Amino acid sequence: MAQQANELFENFDQLTPSEFFRKNKQMLGFTGKIRSLTIVFHELITNSFDASEEAGILPDIDIELKRVGKEHYILRHKDNGPGIPEDYVMQVYCQMFAGSKFRNIQSRGQQGLGCSGCVLLSQMTTGQPARVISCYKEGDEIKGVKMKFKMDVKKNQGLLMEREDYPAESTGVCIELQFKEVSYTLAEQGAFEYIRRTMIGNPHAKITFKDPSGHKYIFKRAANITPVLPKEVLPHPKGVSADDIHFMAKHSDKRRYKSMLTSSLSRMSSKKVDEIAEITGIDMNKSPKSMTFQEAEAIVNCFKKMKFMAPPTDGLIPIGSEQIEKGMKQILKPEFVTTITRKPVTYAGGVSFIIEAGLAYGGDSGRIVNEQRKSEIMRFANRVPLTFDAGSCAITEALKSIDWKRYGLKDLDNTPLTLFINIISTQVPYLSTGKQSVSPEPEIVHEIRQATMKLARKLQKHIRAKKAAKEKEKRSKVFEEYVPVIIEEAAKLGETGVPEYHEVLAKVTKRALAELLGEKVEDDDEEEEELDAIIMEEVDEFGHTVERNQSALDNFDEKNEDEEESEE
Amino acid sequence: MAQQANELFENFDQLTPSEFFRKNKQMLGFTGKIRSLTIVFHELITNSFDASEEAGILPDIDIELKRVGKEHYILRHKDNGPGIPEDYVMQVYCQMFAGSKFRNIQSRGQQGLGCSGCVLLSQMTTGQPARVISCYKEGDEIKGVKMKFKMDVKKNQGLLMEREDYPAESTGVCIELQFKEVSYTLAEQGAFEYIRRTMIGNPHAKITFKDPSGHKYIFKRAANITPVLPKEVLPHPKGVSADDIHFMAKHSDKRRYKSMLTSSLSRMSSKKVDEIAEITGIDMNKSPKSMTFQEAEAIVNCFKKMKFMAPPTDGLIPIGSEQIEKGMKQILKPEFVTTITRKPVTYAGGVSFIIEAGLAYGGDSGRIVNEQRKSEIMRFANRVPLTFDAGSCAITEALKSIDWKRYGLKDLDNTPLTLFINIISTQVPYLSTGKQSVSPEPEIVHEIRQATMKLARKLQKHIRAKKAAKEKEKRSKVFEEYVPVIIEEAAKLGETGVPEYHEVLAKVTKRALAELLGEKVEDDDEEEEELDAIIMEEVDEFGHTVERNQSALDNFDEKNEDEEESEE
Repeated sequence: MAQQANELFENFDQLTPSEFFRKNKQMLGFTGKIRSLTIVFHELITNSFDASEEAGILPDIDIELKRVGKEHYILRHKDNGPGIPEDYVMQVYCQMFAGSKFRNIQSRGQQGLGCSGCVLLSQMTTGQPARVISCYKEGDEIKGVKMKFKMDVKKNQGLLMEREDYPAESTGVCIELQFKEVSYTLAEQGAFEYIRRTMIGNPHAKITFKDPSGHKYIFKRAANITPVLPKEVLPHPKGVSADDIHFMAKHSDKRRYKSMLTSSLSRMSSKKVDEIAEITGIDMNKSPKSMTFQEAEAIVNCFKKMKFMAPPTDGLIPIGSEQIEKGMKQILKPEFVTTITRKPVTYAGGVSFIIEAGLAYGGDSGRIVNEQRKSEIMRFANRVPLTFDAGSCAITEALKSIDWKRYGLKDLDNTPLTLFINIISTQVPYLSTGKQSVSPEPEIVHEIRQATMKLARKLQKHIRAKKAAKEKEKRSKVFEEYVPVIIEEAAKLGETGVPEYHEVLAKVTKRALAELLGEKVEDDDEEEEELDAIIMEEVDEFGHTVERNQSALDNFDEKNEDEEESEE
Repeated sequence: MAQQANELFENFDQLTPSEFFRKNKQMLGFTGKIRSLTIVFHELITNSFDASEEAGILPDIDIELKRVGKEHYILRHKDNGPGIPEDYVMQVYCQMFAGSKFRNIQSRGQQGLGCSGCVLLSQMTTGQPARVISCYKEGDEIKGVKMKFKMDVKKNQGLLMEREDYPAESTGVCIELQFKEVSYTLAEQGAFEYIRRTMIGNPHAKITFKDPSGHKYIFKRAANITPVLPKEVLPHPKGVSADDIHFMAKHSDKRRYKSMLTSSLSRMSSKKVDEIAEITGIDMNKSPKSMTFQEAEAIVNCFKKMKFMAPPTDGLIPIGSEQIEKGMKQILKPEFVTTITRKPVTYAGGVSFIIEAGLAYGGDSGRIVNEQRKSEIMRFANRVPLTFDAGSCAITEALKSIDWKRYGLKDLDNTPLTLFINIISTQVPYLSTGKQSVSPEPEIVHEIRQATMKLARKLQKHIRAKKAAKEKEKRSKVFEEYVPVIIEEAAKLGETGVPEYHEVLAKVTKRALAELLGEKVEDDDEEEEELDAIIMEEVDEFGHTVERNQSALDNFDEKNEDEEESEE
């Protein structure tokens, strides 16, 4: 009855990564019909963006989704990126865990899983091969190749079925995949909304999308700026673990601890290494290959006690507030829009990040649910829309914690408002495996709150100004209606003719109104005006209005300006 | 400036599964200090259970957790399972995606990831090797080996450091691992609570646990039954995809479609295959290797239209209501406990599952939060406690949807109650990658509701009976106090002596009370009594009490009995 160990191990087997994910496709985000298709769009678009930008090309993507049966689609995705050299095509699309993105760089993509995941899903649901045309430069020549292949799941590699030369004119990749058991909708989590949000986060891109009904949407480039290439940034000493240092040492080609440390970490000078040697007593002239884990631990513990310059931030490329504004205007055609890009700060001791935010009001802002326009939150990480798992995300948490009533928004849910939040970092702390939500690190939540409150304040001013303008119009009408009557009556009483009063009236009306409404001369310095507004509203614990002197405000100058967080 | 494709692909690389998970340890459930340690306990315990049971051995596990520094622990985990043959030891503990559990069998474990994940975490946080002693039978001999090894992440395999023979007396594995950056607590999501819940779901097991303070907990075996071996069950035709059939065909050693289908699927007779041939027009004598995806699709579409017997359920081994009761009594020492094991049913057309539930009230039931006893929900899948991601789980959803007030529980949260729910299936539809929550399939939610409502009804009866007993005692005291006085006074009036009345009084009191309280003679058939209770309470739309005749009740006999789901 009882089996022996060797019998139990008869079936012992090693799965390939492809076999593993064939059985666990939910680990790639493929759960549900709508979500699965959205994830496919996400993987192909981010891959095209990353490739184009790395090659210094403005992305221009053509997508066509054809419905060929119930829940059966053909997706054609074409980009103008640098292309993939023939030898790598099947590796990119059929080999799980193969990729070129294992550096400490701000990039959108997953780690060699995204594209092959799409091919796997296509094959699992339709049995159809992938069709790829890749055009790429080799020297001065543009080469083109057209391939048809399947994924050999048992071997985790491609299985070529057809190959021919292709007459290339420009570089780029075109991939055609078939899918079943997926579904295209206009819902918030659907593929169309994914493209719409992508365009807000990437106004330098162009996407043409032909949907299953044959309708062609052209999302035009809102900003004609060639994006700055993201740089590889060396990890900061405060952001590495003992295992990282140990791993770096074991695979380093340097001859000494010293050179290994200065070349692998940012802000690590020879002087700093000498300091570490002194504190830890470790000989920094030894070969990295000989480093023990205990030494790595001692070094990292030493990092924790030392002071380093903040990590370099030139690896962080924000979208930029102007660009965000262009993107939001292009897509949402709002009545009012305001955006902000905060200065870089760090979380977890040494990982730098930037928060960008945008707020659009009116026009096509918000989402229509049951024929009513509601507010919407668009979450992004490194410009990629986060579509799922909103509940536990730092962005959701930060926005929920804001007292919106303070900004005159009594019913946020039913306001025609789009809030855009983007976190830029080489190491976004994702919570979920599908990279759909950001861990609520205190520093991140704080920055999102601050950015959003500044925008909310501006919206409040806009709404107030709008009200005031209406009031002005109303009062102006009163003047315009009654003043002529008064003048005419006065003329009758004075037995004189009615004078030419229109021009004078206009001037007087304007001045009188300005006084009535307590308006000042237009002020160009918005920041200062806003601080005034805050100070004027500030009230101390005893209910007395508090006045701060100007010198206290000077502190705001060189850091991220924080809104008051008064909790009632 | 613009880089060419071949330059961009200079860094193209292939990661091993170990390298991948080293960078993505959250995919293995290792997030947070408390959760990480709980996951380690989970992986090692489930692995021991699965191995012991497959070998027909009652599990007996010894765990010791020593604190050797701040957030630095040594974990020793020893089982009495069949052991691991020497050749497989490093594969089990160092090779990701290697395992013996790739069959359609009810098992707890992950797919060749769990144990190697623990070794990886140990190595990443401490740099220490794993120490393993494995004792296993080979023929009539028991062999023993003691090994010390690390994981070579770049190669996804073990790196042997020391090895010696070990004088084995009985079979089993003992593994010692060190961890840093983890934390042991008594919190709900901590390691201790994990063991406690494990014991409720596995009353046939014994666990001895020595905690970091040196306290030794012995969780005794509550039920001395050798567990039935789970059987491999062939997939049901209604539960397979075209890709599954295609994959089976490509890797089948049968000569014809017909024999491939009958040998790979349950409920698939030759007659059924002939039926498929007739409907689809596919020649069933062809070689499986030649099967196209289109044919596989046609076959699966045909399955959908055909009728099959329900899947065999002998692969499903529930804990059994008696065993659950023993487990709950052992751990919770409750005032009242009731349990149920429902009959097997299916979800998604063809995947069978069983719901088991237990309810304990009073005693140590519930959890003490801020010195107040609160109700608690214990979720299990195939006897494994589900500790995280409760929010989206079918079990949580089902229990929340129940109208507890109907069962006399006005404030469920503050009731000393433990609810135990276990779902048994060869294919538990997990929602999250960490296998911590069950997808709310309608059939599953329905079954959990029904099981729980039946238990709630019994608790209601218990609480009512308790109240009635108190009332009885009170009234009985009234009789006992006043009747003697009356008798004595009557004796005085009648000028006779006081008769020997005690025995008679007791009888009379009991009968009179029974009448007063409207009690019936004790009924052994609980089921019928309960149906009566339901029917007696049923009221039609007009507010009239409805009486159903007995024949309508006969339908309850051979299926899972459903509670009425009246929504007010």
